[in-house]
Amino acid sequence: MNAEIIAVGSELLLGQINNTNAKFLSQQLADLGVNVFYHTVVGDNAGRLESAIKIAENRAELIIFTGGLGPTKDDLTKETIAKHLQTNLVMDDTALASIEEYFKRTNRPMTENNRKQALVLSGAKVLPNDYGMAPGMFYQTENKQYMLLPGPPKEMEPMFLKYGFSAIKSQSVEEAVISSRVLRFFGIGEAMLEAEIEDILDNQTNPTIAPLAGDHEVTLRLTAKHHNLDAALTLLEEKEKEIMAVVGDYFYGYDDTSLFKELSKRMQEKKLTLSAAESLTGGMFQETFTSIPGAGGLINGGVVCYTNEVKAKVLNVKLETIKNEGVVSATCAKELAENVAKLMESDIGVSFTGVAGPDELEGNPVGTVYIGIYHDGEARAEKLNLGGSRTSIRKRSSLYGAYFLLKSLA
Amino acid sequence: MNAEIIAVGSELLLGQINNTNAKFLSQQLADLGVNVFYHTVVGDNAGRLESAIKIAENRAELIIFTGGLGPTKDDLTKETIAKHLQTNLVMDDTALASIEEYFKRTNRPMTENNRKQALVLSGAKVLPNDYGMAPGMFYQTENKQYMLLPGPPKEMEPMFLKYGFSAIKSQSVEEAVISSRVLRFFGIGEAMLEAEIEDILDNQTNPTIAPLAGDHEVTLRLTAKHHNLDAALTLLEEKEKEIMAVVGDYFYGYDDTSLFKELSKRMQEKKLTLSAAESLTGGMFQETFTSIPGAGGLINGGVVCYTNEVKAKVLNVKLETIKNEGVVSATCAKELAENVAKLMESDIGVSFTGVAGPDELEGNPVGTVYIGIYHDGEARAEKLNLGGSRTSIRKRSSLYGAYFLLKSLA
Repeated sequence: MNAEIIAVGSELLLGQINNTNAKFLSQQLADLGVNVFYHTVVGDNAGRLESAIKIAENRAELIIFTGGLGPTKDDLTKETIAKHLQTNLVMDDTALASIEEYFKRTNRPMTENNRKQALVLSGAKVLPNDYGMAPGMFYQTENKQYMLLPGPPKEMEPMFLKYGFSAIKSQSVEEAVISSRVLRFFGIGEAMLEAEIEDILDNQTNPTIAPLAGDHEVTLRLTAKHHNLDAALTLLEEKEKEIMAVVGDYFYGYDDTSLFKELSKRMQEKKLTLSAAESLTGGMFQETFTSIPGAGGLINGGVVCYTNEVKAKVLNVKLETIKNEGVVSATCAKELAENVAKLMESDIGVSFTGVAGPDELEGNPVGTVYIGIYHDGEARAEKLNLGGSRTSIRKRSSLYGAYFLLKSLA
Repeated sequence: MNAEIIAVGSELLLGQINNTNAKFLSQQLADLGVNVFYHTVVGDNAGRLESAIKIAENRAELIIFTGGLGPTKDDLTKETIAKHLQTNLVMDDTALASIEEYFKRTNRPMTENNRKQALVLSGAKVLPNDYGMAPGMFYQTENKQYMLLPGPPKEMEPMFLKYGFSAIKSQSVEEAVISSRVLRFFGIGEAMLEAEIEDILDNQTNPTIAPLAGDHEVTLRLTAKHHNLDAALTLLEEKEKEIMAVVGDYFYGYDDTSLFKELSKRMQEKKLTLSAAESLTGGMFQETFTSIPGAGGLINGGVVCYTNEVKAKVLNVKLETIKNEGVVSATCAKELAENVAKLMESDIGVSFTGVAGPDELEGNPVGTVYIGIYHDGEARAEKLNLGGSRTSIRKRSSLYGAYFLLKSLA
């Protein structure tokens, strides 16, 4: 099956936002074994949209639209498709109820144009929107399939994963099983990882191996094709073993996980609580940790300790430490980790102190970071020398904190 | 003049990277007054690329290609265009010398396929690549213009700015000045904002007004065209006044700013320091604030107070408050804001307590949030009922905190 992704929205053509939806959907379709041959972006203009639809119908069996399902006048995706396919728009009662409920719950008046969002193509399978108002649709004709998804990624992505993926899968005529697995690595760069497994990459056939530099980490996506699922899985297992023998030290998890998710799983298993003292990271470690549903129960609380005064008065870092070794030091990191754990009555303490830039601090160059870890009555510190921007130094410090804790609790 | 941007690269269709080049070029073309009506992405396949070229020639006068100019076999953009336009590729001596020089400088052996990168369309204006090897090209026929740019953004962007922009500008018959301005609004939804200014939107001509729902905010981009810059600016001023008369209450800043940037500017002017006590937001407010370079000096420190014990023991929330009103209450929010300011010796305190979900808390539904603000010896609290996911509730709470503080310090 061949697919085309059509994004509808003048904001894309004005360069206001990236078409991240096309990237997300392309990855998902690759996993389904569906070939994507074209992406198209068209503005909020009925004539040009209809022309794009006709072109897509000449070169794809599945056409996925994103955007243009909202309440305003320039949202015209479903209206244009309905006209093109000579079908009607009908009110979907479930979608309407959900929109009314949304306004009720958030205590806002519902304007008339919001009702328009509950109109769907007559005969379409409706895809519920669990994170917004406009429902999606899956509509089939004799030889084409049309999927309509909302534009905001935070609505589109969960909708596709929960409802869209299976709708397409059940239609896919492909008999071969596509099975894939993502291996995630931290603490090694993409070029270095590829150099280490160069022989394996050069000789790949089935599974294929796709390296990708992600958000301060590197992933390898292994994809095996076979008409038998067990055989596909065996192909994956074998290739994974080969890879792990070379770079297994940097591996931390599979598929859609993260360092923080792995850490929270590990802590839940061991029934441990954690507190953080954050100087240069300014709360990023705790924010990332508590963004995982359920991880909140593993953190009692913590402190953002930007100034020396707060380090000394609130977290009892010794004045002689600050005077003799400075706040950018292993000793300060250890005291912060131990004292925040005690103040918050947690099992584990972690601390971040260092130089995010733009300026040097206490003679230490930008990128000097100490991470303190307190556990089982003992404190230790790890020193990092990080390159990159202020944002990148903060982000990687926070990730290294999770990485060191994960390795400590192995 | 109408343009289409064609990105060539299978990695885009596999979802490995975002087509950020299209965003960058669209912005640049908008500034030149060139209308972009379509983006297309096509893989490294000569037949499908030629078909995309034919379609683009039917709907655009200027076609900009990105990608496929490299040394490997699947780089075939210029070969396909040369064949389609029935012209030849010729060796460009300057480009070849620059490639040879590059290998010499980096001390690497030059392989034969790298020579291929110096081949250009016969008759094209060559655009030098100051940050890589493959040169760009600008080629004109009687009624079409073709620009070929490399795929990596770090090569493409400087090449376009230094050489591509002026090549197009000198061709552009449009003498008008394009001037634009973005107005940013918070605390009002896109549908509501559009409903409020429906008359203004319906009657727009020059300036045009493009609404866009952003990351929990709404923006309006006003774009005026005139042959005289001052007159264009006056058109913007007048339209802005009309809009502000209706929805000015929700306005917070212009162009490329954010609530947190505006708040840090305001605090710097007033020489104020701030501390936060964060329950449901788990550090997000402080992390966002300290991510702005220089804003660190405005925050002494703060507390993440997830559990009731930390709220009571570290931040001295009264036990009777917790017992009688609960931690999800205006009283608790006020005590948190006041006590964190005092603990950290800051001028202002802000606090976040509420229910991010997935479960209810103390009988309060998910989305109930109290934000406490302490300033000039007085504490007050704002109540919110937010919809959406856990992530969205946390994010919007943090943004509302910045918004209320910004309004308080007006």
